[in-house]
Amino acid sequence: MTDFAATRRCFDLPDGVIYLDGNSLGPLPRAAQARLARTLSEEWGRELIRAWNSAGWMAEPRRLGDRIGRLIGAPRGTVVVGDTLSLRLYQALAAALELVPGRSVVLSDSGNFPSDLYMAKGLIRTLDRGLELRVVAPEEIETAIDEDLAVLMLTEVDYRTGRLHDMRRLTRRAHQAGALTVWDLAHSAGALPIDVSTAEADFAVGCTYKYLNAGPGAPAFIYAAPRHVDRIEPVLAGWLGHQSPFDFDPDYRPAAGIDRLRIGTPPILALAVLDAALDVWDRVDLADVRRASLALGDLLIAEVERRCAGLTLASPRDGTQRGSQVSFRHEQGYAIMQALIARGVIGDFRAPDLIRFGLTPLYIRESEIREAVEVLEDIVRNRLWDRPEHQRRLAVT
Amino acid sequence: MTDFAATRRCFDLPDGVIYLDGNSLGPLPRAAQARLARTLSEEWGRELIRAWNSAGWMAEPRRLGDRIGRLIGAPRGTVVVGDTLSLRLYQALAAALELVPGRSVVLSDSGNFPSDLYMAKGLIRTLDRGLELRVVAPEEIETAIDEDLAVLMLTEVDYRTGRLHDMRRLTRRAHQAGALTVWDLAHSAGALPIDVSTAEADFAVGCTYKYLNAGPGAPAFIYAAPRHVDRIEPVLAGWLGHQSPFDFDPDYRPAAGIDRLRIGTPPILALAVLDAALDVWDRVDLADVRRASLALGDLLIAEVERRCAGLTLASPRDGTQRGSQVSFRHEQGYAIMQALIARGVIGDFRAPDLIRFGLTPLYIRESEIREAVEVLEDIVRNRLWDRPEHQRRLAVT
Repeated sequence: MTDFAATRRCFDLPDGVIYLDGNSLGPLPRAAQARLARTLSEEWGRELIRAWNSAGWMAEPRRLGDRIGRLIGAPRGTVVVGDTLSLRLYQALAAALELVPGRSVVLSDSGNFPSDLYMAKGLIRTLDRGLELRVVAPEEIETAIDEDLAVLMLTEVDYRTGRLHDMRRLTRRAHQAGALTVWDLAHSAGALPIDVSTAEADFAVGCTYKYLNAGPGAPAFIYAAPRHVDRIEPVLAGWLGHQSPFDFDPDYRPAAGIDRLRIGTPPILALAVLDAALDVWDRVDLADVRRASLALGDLLIAEVERRCAGLTLASPRDGTQRGSQVSFRHEQGYAIMQALIARGVIGDFRAPDLIRFGLTPLYIRESEIREAVEVLEDIVRNRLWDRPEHQRRLAVT
Repeated sequence: MTDFAATRRCFDLPDGVIYLDGNSLGPLPRAAQARLARTLSEEWGRELIRAWNSAGWMAEPRRLGDRIGRLIGAPRGTVVVGDTLSLRLYQALAAALELVPGRSVVLSDSGNFPSDLYMAKGLIRTLDRGLELRVVAPEEIETAIDEDLAVLMLTEVDYRTGRLHDMRRLTRRAHQAGALTVWDLAHSAGALPIDVSTAEADFAVGCTYKYLNAGPGAPAFIYAAPRHVDRIEPVLAGWLGHQSPFDFDPDYRPAAGIDRLRIGTPPILALAVLDAALDVWDRVDLADVRRASLALGDLLIAEVERRCAGLTLASPRDGTQRGSQVSFRHEQGYAIMQALIARGVIGDFRAPDLIRFGLTPLYIRESEIREAVEVLEDIVRNRLWDRPEHQRRLAVT
């Protein structure tokens, strides 16, 4: 049984804030500062270049990949960490496409994160071999799977509505059609139990700055199924994916296994913070997280619908159909969110009209949901959003 | 006049170490720890998601790009920071190739860093339009430039020998042939004065963990000449290269200017360290660095040749022909370097037989060069490399 009082103490949350945006940027783990200070002083500072050996830096992307693997049902040695999620998506899609030559369609849905669609289009343009990116509504994915399908590329949890795809069923359908799958776990890793092995996902990518709490712009991860990995010809053939990087071989020979998806020099300081952030998960059962998250979501929906007229639920009401966030629509969504933030209730806004709340039982309790809705009720009922400071657009929403 | 006693005090160097490997990993700037602690506690910890606006996080890749731009002769707004050097090379080469359709050759030299060659081959394979990567000896580059040339892709300073290409002359030759250039400044940024504008370089990329001292795996940078940038169709079309990322537009519309070469979410913690590392350069004149570096190199060569029989100079003797490192060949190079490191003289080894010393006047003095050569003389004269612990291969050399 996960002790959520204990996990909450692992985070440094500011007073006066109810933080419902951990699905965008997780909070600071208390252990991060000391871990990073040690990496700076004792490793970089004292050991200098020697730390690549003495502190094991070169192995960190794999070691941390294994720590993440445990959270997504990936066996040891199948996940590696580094680069950004957009990049990892490009890499996974390119690898998948090379494994299914002669097929023409990459299928995704209109709820996918725009960057995934952009990266896919950029790759398809670069490949220039008649591929098409087909984007349908999320509920039409299953019927859009046909014999032309090369790769089904989906984000498991919709970044706006929280709608949850059935990874297992859709992967099976794609496989039946002779296609492969690339799953983006940005809004699922650390949010709910995932099992890429049981689901037979072919590739998966994700980020670590949301539910995994590794800090702003923390590195991404990539999973490749063991049955595929040694057949991948990396398009991003960086030296650390070489089987012997320090031979400085003029010819690229990909490393065995997941190492071939490494590219450049690993971001050691960011990996140190990720390591500290992952410590929290050692004491967590994701089934408990899921139960608690759904309870928080159900409570939020019930309280908002009871007290806040004018807000419309944009997320699935059925918890089994959603990830770990709940969103509502309101034409003044932007200003309402600014008013909430000014009062210490931090969620976020997604164009055109969504206010979005991340539910993270590691550090959020039911009492905070009630408090947050009280503030929201006050803002909506008294039109407190209708002030110039709340209407002013910020660069980042 | 640069005060090198003052710049030396900016670094936290361990006692008993003479650090001649700043061309691989620069040492820890004293200001880094406090800068990072502030970013963690006051920005991430207190501000949470709001810091993207309140702490200006989203603008950091551009602001730091401008700080680097000053060191490489790039105008404001032409450099952006993030991702790895291998990735930036891929991005720059892809952009350049799209600007010269109908030509078939990417020309590079056998002294280029292997990752650049691997990434180029991966890109060429992906593009699948009959391009060829032609690799010639460094001294044959100029005569290999012909009318088939699409892109001349070179690292200005050879990572092994320190041989320095003439960026201005070779760029002019490439332009006369109707081609474009991509320059890798990994071993030049912070090592010597560079002026990408005067040289009319088309694209340049570089890393910040060597002479710029931003830490292990610190982010890379990319420069695109203003005359090209708005014609680039990014192959790595990430959301932060979109003209309005927070519109979450299903269609990619590239941002104006260098922003279109941004990809994913910026690595804020690494950028904070880079910011602290760049502070040192505010008090530095690169012409002074160049003079001092050449003096250190000339002294090192003279001392080694006078005292260490069996070592052969692998770098240009003429300082105007080399960057900021000096290398020697010895068949026991690996073990000699291990013996040196065991005695606190840290350089590095590059296969098959090179021992390499980085010369960084920001924190290295002539007296240390003399001391280092004393140790080297002792090792070579008394065959102290011939011990099992020095012969044992480490993972990272």
